[in-house]
Amino acid sequence: MLSNSFVKRLVDIVGETYIEQSEASLLAYSYDATPNFQSKPDIVVTPGSTTEIAQIVKLCTEYQVPIVPRGSGTNLAAGTTPTQGGVVLLFTRLDQILELDEENLTITVQPGVITKTICDTVEARGLFYPPDPSSMKISTIGGNINENSGGLRGLKYGVTKDYILALEVVLPNGDTIRTGGKLAKDVAGYDLTKLFVGSEGTLGIVTEATLKLVPMTESKQTLLAIYESIDQASKTVSSIIANKMTPATLEFMDQPTIKAVEEYAHLGLPTQAESVLLIEQDGPVEVVSKDIKLIAELCKAEGAIEVKTAQTEEEANQLREGRRSALSALARLSPTTILEDATVPRSEIARMVRAINQIAAKYDLNIATFGHAGDGNLHPTCMTDARNQDEWERVEKAFEEIFAYAIECGGTITGEHGVGEMKSPYLEWKVGEAGLAAMKNIKTAFDPHNIMNPRKMFAKDTRKRITL
Amino acid sequence: MLSNSFVKRLVDIVGETYIEQSEASLLAYSYDATPNFQSKPDIVVTPGSTTEIAQIVKLCTEYQVPIVPRGSGTNLAAGTTPTQGGVVLLFTRLDQILELDEENLTITVQPGVITKTICDTVEARGLFYPPDPSSMKISTIGGNINENSGGLRGLKYGVTKDYILALEVVLPNGDTIRTGGKLAKDVAGYDLTKLFVGSEGTLGIVTEATLKLVPMTESKQTLLAIYESIDQASKTVSSIIANKMTPATLEFMDQPTIKAVEEYAHLGLPTQAESVLLIEQDGPVEVVSKDIKLIAELCKAEGAIEVKTAQTEEEANQLREGRRSALSALARLSPTTILEDATVPRSEIARMVRAINQIAAKYDLNIATFGHAGDGNLHPTCMTDARNQDEWERVEKAFEEIFAYAIECGGTITGEHGVGEMKSPYLEWKVGEAGLAAMKNIKTAFDPHNIMNPRKMFAKDTRKRITL
Repeated sequence: MLSNSFVKRLVDIVGETYIEQSEASLLAYSYDATPNFQSKPDIVVTPGSTTEIAQIVKLCTEYQVPIVPRGSGTNLAAGTTPTQGGVVLLFTRLDQILELDEENLTITVQPGVITKTICDTVEARGLFYPPDPSSMKISTIGGNINENSGGLRGLKYGVTKDYILALEVVLPNGDTIRTGGKLAKDVAGYDLTKLFVGSEGTLGIVTEATLKLVPMTESKQTLLAIYESIDQASKTVSSIIANKMTPATLEFMDQPTIKAVEEYAHLGLPTQAESVLLIEQDGPVEVVSKDIKLIAELCKAEGAIEVKTAQTEEEANQLREGRRSALSALARLSPTTILEDATVPRSEIARMVRAINQIAAKYDLNIATFGHAGDGNLHPTCMTDARNQDEWERVEKAFEEIFAYAIECGGTITGEHGVGEMKSPYLEWKVGEAGLAAMKNIKTAFDPHNIMNPRKMFAKDTRKRITL
Repeated sequence: MLSNSFVKRLVDIVGETYIEQSEASLLAYSYDATPNFQSKPDIVVTPGSTTEIAQIVKLCTEYQVPIVPRGSGTNLAAGTTPTQGGVVLLFTRLDQILELDEENLTITVQPGVITKTICDTVEARGLFYPPDPSSMKISTIGGNINENSGGLRGLKYGVTKDYILALEVVLPNGDTIRTGGKLAKDVAGYDLTKLFVGSEGTLGIVTEATLKLVPMTESKQTLLAIYESIDQASKTVSSIIANKMTPATLEFMDQPTIKAVEEYAHLGLPTQAESVLLIEQDGPVEVVSKDIKLIAELCKAEGAIEVKTAQTEEEANQLREGRRSALSALARLSPTTILEDATVPRSEIARMVRAINQIAAKYDLNIATFGHAGDGNLHPTCMTDARNQDEWERVEKAFEEIFAYAIECGGTITGEHGVGEMKSPYLEWKVGEAGLAAMKNIKTAFDPHNIMNPRKMFAKDTRKRITL
């Protein structure tokens, strides 16, 4: 419960218009895209400038009120749920592209800009911003920065972190700092830029960012390879890499995912196939043709029963959109959908998919798996019903086993979705007791009163590590 | 002065053989490649394992003795000088390549491995480790990691940080942690890997690293463009980028550098030219040919009086080696050579080079400039004599003005050499008071007793900011 004086001072900072306290508003911001982590904030505020944000942060520090910065709330690990109440801080008024610098190949934006708007803006100038999270049509760049979002082009182009050159950040003590610059190289002190990217809003509030752009690729080709076994698909991934190629996209879908996508999007996908790979290459025309031809041969050599190359951009786009719609397609099948994010070294994909299927069978659960095969980043997705207590317990146990197995394979509990509150009990499994202590020390150094997105990343208790 | 009990316990850890205390040894490790920062350590130790390093760190914490981790000592910012005495820790016994994983495209190494050994090892397998600091024939990968070393291929391929996937680190409290993994994506907690890379040995001791490799490029071509003015060379850089090309190398040398290199290496360089660009492109044969042809046209369009394309790999190698030898060539000309590392946005190169020349004239100094034009990373190099007190004071003033001007241009005080002790009084100019405070908080969180490479990065006092 917020004190009247706190609310009054908050109104003084941003104005009555930009405060929401109605039950409807509080409910609207009580959850993100993660099931089962609903919790109402005490107030929702929409500041209009960095100066206002700095004042809000100082006020929250004074009153020890939690702040949860929130983009579009597409987070899948309960990273933007106000589980400790407090202030939800929105960026809808900070949605401007501030500068497109074509000489230095950078774009400077406010955190509330939609990711796809950035992509479209730079593409119109022959430039390219590669990170493309599946939610890019609605996610904000500020959210992408907080979560270090990945996407379908990660294998060749990397993730959000690889494209953030400079940040303006309001620290928990109310100071505003600027990190980095329009610089290809900068080693002046610790790399605060890369520390903030992916810190899930726990260290400060990003209020401006300068992004690196690259020249737009000349051409692109898309291919779909259809398999009767997951192993063959997985071996194809290794074979492509071993042949010294780096495709722009190298995506995997298993049979349940293919079926759901086909029912949802009617693309003519082979619903009887055990798995498909969606592969794209981009670059100069001659290179793309050569690579796609060789990739098609490798797919066949590894046992693909069919390899289709998209003949038109429309056809290619349909295939891409099919893959992008996997979560929406699966989400239609049950009241609750849990999309996980286990990541393993590329060489371990087949082993990991087999383990996921065994774990699903063991706990009698319906799990479909798709993901970024080139990155070893798999999204096992459980169709369930959170109201079914017995099944829910089995879901939790199954995912615990999946995390443990991913770590066993040299992998991690999250490749691109973040830890949030959902996976915080498992962070120690990946980083160890000493690693977690080091992270907590960083958190305390920046935010001694723990007001910045509290309870995210760091759990009250670590789950007991499962022995496989 | 170390206590007898400290030395005895150190001997217990590593054995008598791996301790050096002779005057000759202490002198040998009293400096790195930076002039004027000589200071003797109290003892030199060469541990043989991570376990021994952890024990040494705990011992040093107990006795509050500084530890300076040191690779080959090629640092140019007094980053590895034991200016507070204590223990110099060498990695010569930790010089093994532990694994080359061709399926996941990684190599795992101990910190004492020479950078070029890594390059040669992976190239023999058709793979490529791109970071190539000029000192790569003698520098160690551990040193490269501590300094986040750059090199000639930074524009297209990035720097050391972009290739470090996982680390083993001994923390100042004696804990050993493992960060990251053989993973293209990992967002489990704060990115400790990228925080340690470039932290100049102030946060812990890197004892193992897993590096990302990429497929070896198919072909490479090298071109030398000769100019009568620096502006024309600089405009060529912008023009190449504006034409959506990213050369693998885009290096600049001014006339004094060209002259020195020619006298040193006898490559037939045009010593009358105001400046030259050394440009390389790599990739598939057809792409390289097309790019080099277009680049040659752009050079001529911007006013190059001559454009030479290397006809053989030997000729290309000579040009590369010529550029790599710039520091050695200039260093022969005077008793003391100060090589600086100011970096600006690419669009500001011409302005920055003009400013350097004006500052050199103002202080009556002999400054040659070369560097990574594509990255905006310039190395103004002053030929001087540290024994000439009057001139030395002018050198210091000139470099202060160069730093201030670089920051004025949106640049930084160091692009790839690090802050070390030499540039620590200027760090606040770049990162601001609040930014510096945030960095000091991180340092304290990891190393409360300030035993890890003390006095590096953080100065006792910040210099008064020059107003231009």
